[in-house]
Amino acid sequence: MKAVGLVVEYNPFHNGHLYHIKEAKSETRSEVAVAVMSGSFLQRGEPAIVSKWARTKMALASFADVVVELPYIFAVQKAETFAEGAVSILNELGCSSLFFGSEHGDIEAFLNTAAHTIEHEDRLNEEARKQIAFGLSYPQAMAKAFRSVTREGGNIVDLSKPNNILGFHYVKAIMQKQLSMKPETVKRRSSGYHDSTFPEADRIASATSIRKSIFETGSLADSRFYLPKTTVDELDEYARTFGMWHSPEDYFPFLKYSLHTMDTEELKGIYEVEEGLEHRVKKAIRKAGSFKEYMELLKTKRYTWTRLQRMNTHILTKTKKADVKRMLNETHPAYIRLLGMTKKGQAYLAEKKKSLSAPLITKTGSFSHPSLQLDIKAGQVYSAPLKEPVRTMLTEQEYSLSPIRYDEDSRIFLRK
Amino acid sequence: MKAVGLVVEYNPFHNGHLYHIKEAKSETRSEVAVAVMSGSFLQRGEPAIVSKWARTKMALASFADVVVELPYIFAVQKAETFAEGAVSILNELGCSSLFFGSEHGDIEAFLNTAAHTIEHEDRLNEEARKQIAFGLSYPQAMAKAFRSVTREGGNIVDLSKPNNILGFHYVKAIMQKQLSMKPETVKRRSSGYHDSTFPEADRIASATSIRKSIFETGSLADSRFYLPKTTVDELDEYARTFGMWHSPEDYFPFLKYSLHTMDTEELKGIYEVEEGLEHRVKKAIRKAGSFKEYMELLKTKRYTWTRLQRMNTHILTKTKKADVKRMLNETHPAYIRLLGMTKKGQAYLAEKKKSLSAPLITKTGSFSHPSLQLDIKAGQVYSAPLKEPVRTMLTEQEYSLSPIRYDEDSRIFLRK
Repeated sequence: MKAVGLVVEYNPFHNGHLYHIKEAKSETRSEVAVAVMSGSFLQRGEPAIVSKWARTKMALASFADVVVELPYIFAVQKAETFAEGAVSILNELGCSSLFFGSEHGDIEAFLNTAAHTIEHEDRLNEEARKQIAFGLSYPQAMAKAFRSVTREGGNIVDLSKPNNILGFHYVKAIMQKQLSMKPETVKRRSSGYHDSTFPEADRIASATSIRKSIFETGSLADSRFYLPKTTVDELDEYARTFGMWHSPEDYFPFLKYSLHTMDTEELKGIYEVEEGLEHRVKKAIRKAGSFKEYMELLKTKRYTWTRLQRMNTHILTKTKKADVKRMLNETHPAYIRLLGMTKKGQAYLAEKKKSLSAPLITKTGSFSHPSLQLDIKAGQVYSAPLKEPVRTMLTEQEYSLSPIRYDEDSRIFLRK
Repeated sequence: MKAVGLVVEYNPFHNGHLYHIKEAKSETRSEVAVAVMSGSFLQRGEPAIVSKWARTKMALASFADVVVELPYIFAVQKAETFAEGAVSILNELGCSSLFFGSEHGDIEAFLNTAAHTIEHEDRLNEEARKQIAFGLSYPQAMAKAFRSVTREGGNIVDLSKPNNILGFHYVKAIMQKQLSMKPETVKRRSSGYHDSTFPEADRIASATSIRKSIFETGSLADSRFYLPKTTVDELDEYARTFGMWHSPEDYFPFLKYSLHTMDTEELKGIYEVEEGLEHRVKKAIRKAGSFKEYMELLKTKRYTWTRLQRMNTHILTKTKKADVKRMLNETHPAYIRLLGMTKKGQAYLAEKKKSLSAPLITKTGSFSHPSLQLDIKAGQVYSAPLKEPVRTMLTEQEYSLSPIRYDEDSRIFLRK
């Protein structure tokens, strides 16, 4: 069976994702779609709106065949590291191609841009360092450095666009790792990743605008037109069972508590707390009455909002620099954690199982690895704002839940 | 002016305390009552029902003239360390006597018991170690060891009674430090420290029974008969302003979060986490849906409930073994933090100020010491379950609030 790989967050799964996944299968002529999905916390440093399990169900009900977890160590990272982790896992799972949406939409430009970057890597990094020294944020510095090493009019991707950046890093990782997996892209139909208002005449809206509507209205009334019915059902079910949808603000009491009990030395040991940020963080948390207030006190030109959000998530999960360094040293996935599969997905995995070099984890109790421990811890932190008994229920699912199985023919989820 | 010293928690201040404070002044013929009071967390490892500020107001309105904070490092400790810290501070403040309530009520017996203990200290400790090795808890082992070194019929205090234990340690600390402060005791009028039901025909009830009634009914309706009116007013005012009275259960989400993000190595570094308790703690927290459930999973014969509660409080405040060791090494108070005073108390302090060897702290911003930092941190942790904006308001009071001043003649609190 031929499989196409997708790198996803599904926060939540919406019509744009549905369009993308169908197109991925048809364009690449694949029978199987394999999605590597962030777990509890996402690339922008935010908690997922609902648990990885609920999001896995949304995906399986909408044409994904295999859903595996992108470990926290790759998920809550800048685009480059995020892409490297995701690409490795999709390759390990035997995907023939990697299909991604982008603002640009032309794969040749991505290949060209990545090749050019690899060729001029040293000059590029040097230029970026200079720009950072001038006070630019990392993405701004990289974009500027990139423009300085490319000539006008070349077939080059605009790296100021968020999906272009991610796609660029997928392609670059594939090239650098010399993988046979073929990258393909399609122009995204929704107008922009960060758009926070609904487009008038379209059933596709960005995940950002959907979440904004959900949190502002506390309901799915306005956003439901942009979501598959199964997503609406899962979101409803989650709120009924767990009493909430997760937003960064829900974690503020724990962030505040955590920072009050950490001294600056300990804070300096946390991943992404760099260049005296520990003092800024300590100062901001004292006065802030909400996450938003805290972030506004923290924000500087030098760091992007998402960079700071990721740092906060690492503070919340107590992820230390030393741990990250050790874990990122591994060049191949040490394990792959299966979150769910369809019948076809199950057949695909049975076929590929022998050629996998990393163990496929279906229950976390049966395997131990620092990165998996970190995923479990992230799941426990993710549950913190819930009320008992569902808090303990969700944290225990990290240990006890088997992968979700979906019968795509009869369209039902199978019990264990 | 002559001052009598009292060691108090006022959790909350009730009629028994009122009786005690009046008697202390009259029996010792003192014009001034100096109370050294636990701050945010108490000797039994519980959070105080209301803030130290609210409890200071209760005390000042009921005949205490000076209220100073017993630092966390002494407050959340076994009786011996608690007593040593409290006695040092009262002595430093120039108290002529220390007056305490006890089940026994005869100071000669306390003096006799303490002298005997000091004389036989080595044998006593050796015997206690043996008993602990047999699986007894520390207080049980000490009581048994004590019986083994005393002869029948001597004028000896029963050290199985909680107030006798505290009093014994006050007297012992005074003797060991060779202080001129004179210990005095009176038989407690309420039936027992831990009684949790109201006595029928008396206006005095234990603080335990008062808290039980308050938390069970969520109101002061039943307990108000056992409280001075100013206590009722302060408790009401606190609930109106801060939205709650503090109970151990309110801290459970933070304890759980904290334990989920600590590995066993870090946990082992926390004060009072001894002899493999870190594994027991980790196991208990996973399944527990409430503080009560957690404590029941944790409890063993070897450790008393209060010992385990203190450990939990140290986990909550991340108080490390190394920090405690360093701080307890100091034999004299490094500072005295003033929480409040009456006009007479102010005159008394003005008189004594020159002879104080430790600085009298009225604002925490003006002084820095690890133990004071710990008190501030404990105050921040204490505020964690509050909602914004009052959470930040209370934590900021640790930095900004001046001592509370009470005009005992016109019976009004003075504004800054």
